[in-house]
Formats: sequence, C-alpha cells, structure tokens
Amino acid sequence: MLSLVDLRTRIAAGTLDPAGAVRLSQEAIAARDPGIGAIVRQHPDPAIPRGGPLAGIAVGIKDIIDTADLPTQMGSPIYAGWQPKADAAIVARLRALGAVPLAKTTTSPFASHDPTATVNPRDRGHTPGGSSAGSAAAVAAGMVPLAIGTQTGGSVIRPAAFCGVAAIKPSFRLLPTVGVKTFSWALDTLGLFGAGIRDIAQGLSLIADRPGLDLDEAPGTPRIGLCLQDFAGPADPEALAALSTAVRALEAAGARVGDLTLPAPLPEAWACHATIQDYEARQALAWEYTHHRARLSPELGDQLDAAQALDAAAYDEARRSAHRARRVLKDLFRDVDAILTVSAPGRAPAGLGTTGDARYNRLWTLMGVPCVTVPVPSDGLPLGVQVVARFGDDGRALAVARMIEAALAA
Amino acid sequence: MLSLVDLRTRIAAGTLDPAGAVRLSQEAIAARDPGIGAIVRQHPDPAIPRGGPLAGIAVGIKDIIDTADLPTQMGSPIYAGWQPKADAAIVARLRALGAVPLAKTTTSPFASHDPTATVNPRDRGHTPGGSSAGSAAAVAAGMVPLAIGTQTGGSVIRPAAFCGVAAIKPSFRLLPTVGVKTFSWALDTLGLFGAGIRDIAQGLSLIADRPGLDLDEAPGTPRIGLCLQDFAGPADPEALAALSTAVRALEAAGARVGDLTLPAPLPEAWACHATIQDYEARQALAWEYTHHRARLSPELGDQLDAAQALDAAAYDEARRSAHRARRVLKDLFRDVDAILTVSAPGRAPAGLGTTGDARYNRLWTLMGVPCVTVPVPSDGLPLGVQVVARFGDDGRALAVARMIEAALAA
Repeated sequence: MLSLVDLRTRIAAGTLDPAGAVRLSQEAIAARDPGIGAIVRQHPDPAIPRGGPLAGIAVGIKDIIDTADLPTQMGSPIYAGWQPKADAAIVARLRALGAVPLAKTTTSPFASHDPTATVNPRDRGHTPGGSSAGSAAAVAAGMVPLAIGTQTGGSVIRPAAFCGVAAIKPSFRLLPTVGVKTFSWALDTLGLFGAGIRDIAQGLSLIADRPGLDLDEAPGTPRIGLCLQDFAGPADPEALAALSTAVRALEAAGARVGDLTLPAPLPEAWACHATIQDYEARQALAWEYTHHRARLSPELGDQLDAAQALDAAAYDEARRSAHRARRVLKDLFRDVDAILTVSAPGRAPAGLGTTGDARYNRLWTLMGVPCVTVPVPSDGLPLGVQVVARFGDDGRALAVARMIEAALAA
Repeated sequence: MLSLVDLRTRIAAGTLDPAGAVRLSQEAIAARDPGIGAIVRQHPDPAIPRGGPLAGIAVGIKDIIDTADLPTQMGSPIYAGWQPKADAAIVARLRALGAVPLAKTTTSPFASHDPTATVNPRDRGHTPGGSSAGSAAAVAAGMVPLAIGTQTGGSVIRPAAFCGVAAIKPSFRLLPTVGVKTFSWALDTLGLFGAGIRDIAQGLSLIADRPGLDLDEAPGTPRIGLCLQDFAGPADPEALAALSTAVRALEAAGARVGDLTLPAPLPEAWACHATIQDYEARQALAWEYTHHRARLSPELGDQLDAAQALDAAAYDEARRSAHRARRVLKDLFRDVDAILTVSAPGRAPAGLGTTGDARYNRLWTLMGVPCVTVPVPSDGLPLGVQVVARFGDDGRALAVARMIEAALAA
C-alpha cells in the first residue's frame, strides 16, 4: 500500500516530488484497477500543487461527493454524467492543503446497501464491502494513499476491515458534509481510509485543522472496555479471535481491559437506527424516488418503498431514544478511555451479492462518536477491530488504535 | 395578502379550483412584482395537481433552494443560470402535497448580509430585510400564500417582521435542508412565511407531517417570559411599544406574563454565534471563495476574508458554549411555556443599503428552538413580536403566537 506518512516524509526529504508521488498513484491505478474496479473516473491531467502539507497526496473521492472537475454519479444511472458546479467542502479543503483529488471511487447507489461491481483486492472472489467500496479497495490495492468515504450505518469501518486497511469515522460533523449527497442527515459522516493508523491520523489532523488529533505519544495505560454488542447477535469465531488477539496485544502493551456491557438505552437506540435513517432517506431521496423509482437499485428501491409507511411519531421517538443513549454513553466514558469491539461480523462475504452487515457499526454512527478500525493480521481475508471513543475525542481513538497496531506488529 | 387557510377552504368548498388559486398568484405577480422585485424566476407553465392537501397553493422558494425545473442562482453571478439536477427535499415535499413551487424568490448572495434590489411592499423606500427578502416581500405583496426561506442569523423572522407577515423558523432540522445551499450547517434552518399564524401553522403541520403542530385550541393560561435580550443592546422605542402592546393583549387574553432575564450561558452563547457561523461558512463556501473571490458580494467577501483567520479551537469552544446554553434554556422552559421578545430592533431601515440587524434572532437560531413572529398593528411600517418555545415545541410557539394575533385583533 501507499503510505501517506511515507510519501510526505520522502517529499519533505527531497527524494520524491509531488508530481512523482501522484505518478505512483496514476501508475498503480493503470496497472491494478482493471482487475478491481475501484475507480469510476480519473482526472486525466490533474493540477499538482508543489506546496502544502498534503502536496503529492493523491486522493480517492467516493462518487457521492461533489467535484467541480469530475462528474459525480452517485453510483446510479439517474446521475450518469452529472457534473456538479462546485467542489464539496472536503474536496476544497484537500485542494487547499495541496492534495490532488485524483479519482472518483465506486459507491453503492446513493451509498445504499446494493453492491457495486468492485472486488476485494485481497481476494477477488469477495466483496470489498460497501457502500464506500471503491475508497477501501483503492487504498488496499495501493492505488492511493488516502481515500474519502462516508458512513451512515457502517460504510467506512466495514469495507476498511474487509479490505485490511485502516480507517476512521470521525466524530459527527468534524468533517463538513457540504456537497455530499445526503442519505440521512443525522447519520451521514465522512471518513478516511489509509494504509495505517498514523496515515489516517496525519490526514485527519491536517484536514480538520486540529493538530492535537495526531498524537505522537502513546496513551499510557488506557482503560479499555471490551464490548461484544451482544444485542446485535454473535460475531463469527474468527472475528472474536481477532478481538482476543487485539486484547492480548493491548494488555501486553500496558492497557487495562475489562468487559463492558452497554446499558439498556444503548441497545434500544441501536434498534432505532433504521427508523431514523430511512425516515430521513425518504425525504433526502424524494426527488429520485418520485421521478426515477424504476431506475433505483433493487434494495434501495425496496427500502424506500417501505420507508413511505414510516410516520413522524416513530421518527421523533427514535430521535429521543438516540438522545438518551448519547447521555448514557457520555457517562460510560468516565470509566473507560475507549471501547473495543469488532469492526464487522467476520471476514468479507464471498461473491458480490452483498456488501456485508453493518450491525456492529450502526450504534456508534448514531451516537456520533469516533470509530477507528485496525487491521488484525490473520490467515486469509482481513479482519479488523474497532476502537470507539467519546464524542470529540478522535485523538484518543486514534492513539489507542495506534497502540493496538504497534502491539500487533511487535 | 393571499391566505393559505382561505384558499384551502374555498377549494374544499368547491368555489375555487387549484388552477384558479394558482392563477391568483400568477396575476398578482404580474401586477405587483415589477415594482417590488421579489421574484427571480417564475415557472411559465407549472403543472398544477388537482389533489393533495396543498393543491392550489403557489409557493415562493428562496433561490438558494434547489429546484429541478427552475435555475437556482443563489443571488450570485457565480451561479447565473445554474440548473440543479434534483428538487431539494422541501420542494419535493411541497409537490407531493399538491403545492406548486411557482417562483424562485430573491435572496442575498448565498443568504449573506448583502442587500438585494427587492423593496419593501409596505413602503418601497425601505428594505424588506434579508436574506429571505423575496419570500417575505412576495407574501406581503399578496403574490403567494406561502413562501419558503432560510435563517442562519435572523433571515426569516426579521424580514417577516419588516414586511408585516407571519413567519416561523421551526425547531432545527424539523424541515430537511437537503438541497439547500449551506452557509452554516449548525445554524441554517428552513422557515415559512404566510399571511397569518393559522396559515403558517397549517402549512408547517402538513409539510412536516405533524398534525399536532396545528393547534386549534387556545393554550389556556400560558406562562410567558418577557425577555428584552439586553445583552444585544436596546431595541428602538417603537419595537418596545409593540412588545408592550402584545403583552397587554396576552394578559387580557389570560396569559401570565413575567420578566425573564437569561442566565449568563445564554448571552455567552449569543456572542459565539458569529464564530460558529463564519467558521462553517468558510468551509461551506470554500469553492466559491477560492475560485470566485472577486465575484462575491462586498460584505460576504469581507466576512469570508476575516473568517480565514478563525481557528478550530475557537470554533470548538463556541460549540461547547452553545451546548451549555441549550441545557440552561431547556431548564428555563420548566418555568415558562414561551418567551416573548422583539422580532427586530425596530422597523425596516430606510433605503436598500442594509437588510437590518439580526441581533435579537441569533441566539434562538443557535439554540435551535422554534420562533414565530406575529405582526403588531401600528402606524407606519410594520413591527413584530417574536414567540420562542422549547426545542420541538413548535406547536406551542404557534399557539401562543395565535393567541397574540387573536388578542390584538380583538
């Protein structure tokens, strides 16, 4: 994989220039994407700033995020060839830092559940996950050192785990969603994919303009709450084995790990996720549903059909449930510095019929708290563990994730 | 003015059909808009649904709100002729209810402070206020029975007060902002303009699909906190006189009115509004600022120049201040059912050099609580008083506003 930290180090040392760094991405896309299908459209001749802290960093942009110089097609024939007027705020920010938004990456239609044709670079017979399929696959295949995705249920953490890359879904609205196609405004969250935790930490700290997010120092002896999210059903044995591996590594590195059972308001809120998501999706995609129902992908079409029956009272009660759960979760973080759980129920499913299951991600997206997935070495397809921290404490989530990554490598 | 309730009543009674009701708007626009300038673009041949609860209701749509059948030009030459792909969620919702989004209404560039050329229908030598200038003026001039605007500081309540119409800025995100140009995602709120309180109550309850918002019964003997917002400086004598008139009317109708001084976290949050707004505007309008700085309107250009110096720490602290204030305000609403304050510092300023001052609106926008402005009869240009209720209690804000309106008419 291409490491953002490594490329920046080489550029700073003068052994690589920004154009050369971007060329690495262009060559990797040309060589590998034909067999993977992570890229929707690549800029043929991008401007490459020579300065800025992200100079030379080619970025993959999920194709629900507006770009002024490339179409934004939402993974849907409804938006075939659609050219937005302006860059999304995140794209403008990347350019301001010197980065090169080089290519649009595949997305499930409107970031829904329906699969793309993208395959998993670790095993082409498997899904890369979704909905940010192309962003995860492009980083995993070494095409770009940084990719942007979005998560409404588990669309950043899950594909990252399936593809064996690091990713963060930051605190809600730490990154601006202006110019990003909405599915659910209470849930949609931009996220970053990179080769390792330091790569996404450096990327996020620069993009969010918060140097404190990129912690160099280890978090000492953090208190970790091990959480199985039993309310979401059991995880596969190999996912639980990866979780145990991470626990042992953390304990060996000095962390204190204890079991954590989430109080009732949290599983109650988890059960409300779909109501909030679908009631908002019905409004956010009302134009598409009204005028282009027949061109919607199958699962999304069915989902929006069902959503027409939701009522405002159910939505309002779901929001109150989420509000109660956020307060309970805030209190829980007095006793633990981070929560450790699985990133997905198991390895990437075989075939391209499903993008996998977001059931271990939805609660955290609804809570708005930062989540980081750390690849755990294993035989066969990748597995990941998920670190969750208090709202606004993205730096701590990254530091604990880095501690796991380092301990696993030791 | 055209009353939404009156038109619906006549259509239900069969004395008017939807096409005839829309024709009233088309004729009024043709007759009056040349001297007022509230309309950017009118649909030449709109489809007019014969059914639906808002059938026959022509709606003015602020021109930062996407329409699939009319350009959306943001009040800025940068977006001249720009045709969005899809309807904004609010526009799709209006169409689903049978309403006719007939015309785009003037807006300050990107809903900023810079004035439009629209004049106040009550006195053409005065501003109608901003940034939702055209929506307020179109309702005031009897062109449409319903208009949609947005408020980030005071851009719904203030122009409504200046033009002598009723308006509501509902609870934050009660109405979806999908497809609405973002200025500040923590603040931008859609609002409704109408001839009277019952008109906006019926409109909002239908659009938000919450029948409980349109309260028929009087609120009994509500406890009203009279709040001068001294931290924002003094209001003009005539605005204070209108407030006294409203208090006397309320008391005569059975309400209990007491003075309310807001505890320190609220004025502190009020002082943070600009930091949150401008830090977000810098990101939301980054593409426009980077590529079209010279084509930005003067005040907005200066505002974004200054915003480049804001740092994330100041923004984060401002958000914490707002969070503290929301909790204090929630507690205050245990003792009062609604807060009564001025809608603006005074009457609409003379000339078109300014859209007026939002200083009595900003706190409530930041708190996300519902605000309703009620016209108070007076000699000369209109004045309004503002009713504020607890977050999510839009129905009560409307009921108290209706009580004032009825008491003033009595």
